[in-house]
Amino acid sequence: MDASQIRIAAVGTALPDPPIDNAMLARQFGMNDLWEQWVDGFIGTRTRHLAVDISTGEQRFTLADLGETAARKALDSAGLDALDVDLMIFSTATPDQLMPTTGNVVADRLEINGIPTYQIQSGCSGAVQALELARTVLAAGQHQTALVIGGDVCARYYDTTADLRTMPPGEMVNRVLFGDGAGAAVLTTEPVPNSVAIRGITTRLVGLGRAPGQTLEWFGLTDRDGRAAVVEDYKAIEELIPAMAGEVMAELLDSLDWRADELDFLLPPQLSGRMTQRIVAQLPPTGAREISCVVETGNTGNGLPYLQLERLLEQMKAGERAIGIAVESSKWINAGYALERV
Amino acid sequence: MDASQIRIAAVGTALPDPPIDNAMLARQFGMNDLWEQWVDGFIGTRTRHLAVDISTGEQRFTLADLGETAARKALDSAGLDALDVDLMIFSTATPDQLMPTTGNVVADRLEINGIPTYQIQSGCSGAVQALELARTVLAAGQHQTALVIGGDVCARYYDTTADLRTMPPGEMVNRVLFGDGAGAAVLTTEPVPNSVAIRGITTRLVGLGRAPGQTLEWFGLTDRDGRAAVVEDYKAIEELIPAMAGEVMAELLDSLDWRADELDFLLPPQLSGRMTQRIVAQLPPTGAREISCVVETGNTGNGLPYLQLERLLEQMKAGERAIGIAVESSKWINAGYALERV
Repeated sequence: MDASQIRIAAVGTALPDPPIDNAMLARQFGMNDLWEQWVDGFIGTRTRHLAVDISTGEQRFTLADLGETAARKALDSAGLDALDVDLMIFSTATPDQLMPTTGNVVADRLEINGIPTYQIQSGCSGAVQALELARTVLAAGQHQTALVIGGDVCARYYDTTADLRTMPPGEMVNRVLFGDGAGAAVLTTEPVPNSVAIRGITTRLVGLGRAPGQTLEWFGLTDRDGRAAVVEDYKAIEELIPAMAGEVMAELLDSLDWRADELDFLLPPQLSGRMTQRIVAQLPPTGAREISCVVETGNTGNGLPYLQLERLLEQMKAGERAIGIAVESSKWINAGYALERV
Repeated sequence: MDASQIRIAAVGTALPDPPIDNAMLARQFGMNDLWEQWVDGFIGTRTRHLAVDISTGEQRFTLADLGETAARKALDSAGLDALDVDLMIFSTATPDQLMPTTGNVVADRLEINGIPTYQIQSGCSGAVQALELARTVLAAGQHQTALVIGGDVCARYYDTTADLRTMPPGEMVNRVLFGDGAGAAVLTTEPVPNSVAIRGITTRLVGLGRAPGQTLEWFGLTDRDGRAAVVEDYKAIEELIPAMAGEVMAELLDSLDWRADELDFLLPPQLSGRMTQRIVAQLPPTGAREISCVVETGNTGNGLPYLQLERLLEQMKAGERAIGIAVESSKWINAGYALERV
């Protein structure tokens, strides 16, 4: 069937409560009021949800826990159960283990079996990659219902006993920027009423000749030492991401023959409250309403587009159009999707 | 286009030389002749290639190194260069880092850019998953040439100073079973002469209610201790894998309306020399010639189906048919493909 008829039937999300505000972070890590004001003003992310208890270091939720909750909500909201699912794609940068895949652990808990399941390794563009592959496979005609799940648990990387005052700024800021969470969407070939059609979707590697903007290590038994687990090049991110977001928007509009002023909603990249403001300011003006959540959720990686989609579905009316943009700094990936309520 | 017309234009592989035989392993790890005879006889794997120098522990090759070499060979053999590639899918259980993906590092070295690239996290069924997705995406019609790469570097997990005599047998045997390596295939929508059509392909999660047969951990900064990095349940593997291989073969034959006695080649799962013998013995008799490499290469995970395919392409004549089977024990996945030279 025509891929542009594939629908999002429902979305579900999961965030580990309670939200942790900047004052709580400051208290835990021995930072002062000045730091708190700096985070509020210059980062613009006010709360995030963490799968780890920052006072004890205990991991309260695994990625499988969050993915399972989000998937159950999406299936419930679509009025489907696990037996209806005939394709599953999970995406994450931070799987609980390498094997078995976190996606297959979630499948097991949902009693999903006997179908193809895939796990995509990716960062901020992972949810779009998973939606793109699910849409293509559904359009090929063998399957009818896909469950697409994405999420990240970054807090697992953080030593909660660390002293942020002695930490290099580039490492410290990760504590502020990232949140943990997961989301899921049910995609269907059926023209279900009140659903949203994925009119266009794209992901493109654009990293040639650019050093990675984000590096995330894992450690085997013999090679743990001497390397930082998470490294970001925020200078490069600030410099490159706004233009990349513009490229994604232009590509989607062009491929669909949509005009920017026909957009009702814009779901911009969600790196931090401030970065999102800057990105939106540099996109062509559209009059579209912005759907952002990063100020409350932090950057939840593979979970984030679902958090935006959930908010979008509550507001979007028949005939309205939206473009979502996700940009990945790891090796620089442009990603985005165009939706229309039908 | 019809997915059953998608062709494998060429295959390339990469193994880190030299092969390490059981006598060399025995010498390095202080094992005696009896152990060497046990490995020869009861495991049936005689050599494997390792990316790590077992005498110094130095990592000589990364997965990106092996993947790059395999990809270059496949592209050369297909008479194509990186600019011809418009889709890339990489699969592995053991990425060099979580971010950037190893696939995107390889893409960068090949100067591949501006196209969709995906990385599948999977074990022994990963190469089949990647081939399956590439075939489906190509059949959707937007792209013409896919570069599919898979490989694993398990040696990174091994402490080369460990004393195998004091190691639990279930952990020790991994040193014998696994090898490092990578492979790549070029898939095309073009009816190139002397190519092999992928007539059918399948992957199915079949793990419901079964504990994982293989667990592979990665370690963040705060959670390294107390867990083994690689755990296998060989009892469950021995018990389940032969029947699973039979299911894959039956599904492929049935879906294509092929008879078992029409098969010219069989590419069975490659867990160890002995396990492969046992699996083949329990499959329905076909008269097909077996294409195996595990006795020389060990189980190279995501690289292995390409090592078999390379041997197959050298022998397969026009009109001949082959079935390849890969079974993954992590959360139990049935996978396989059916080929015809056209």
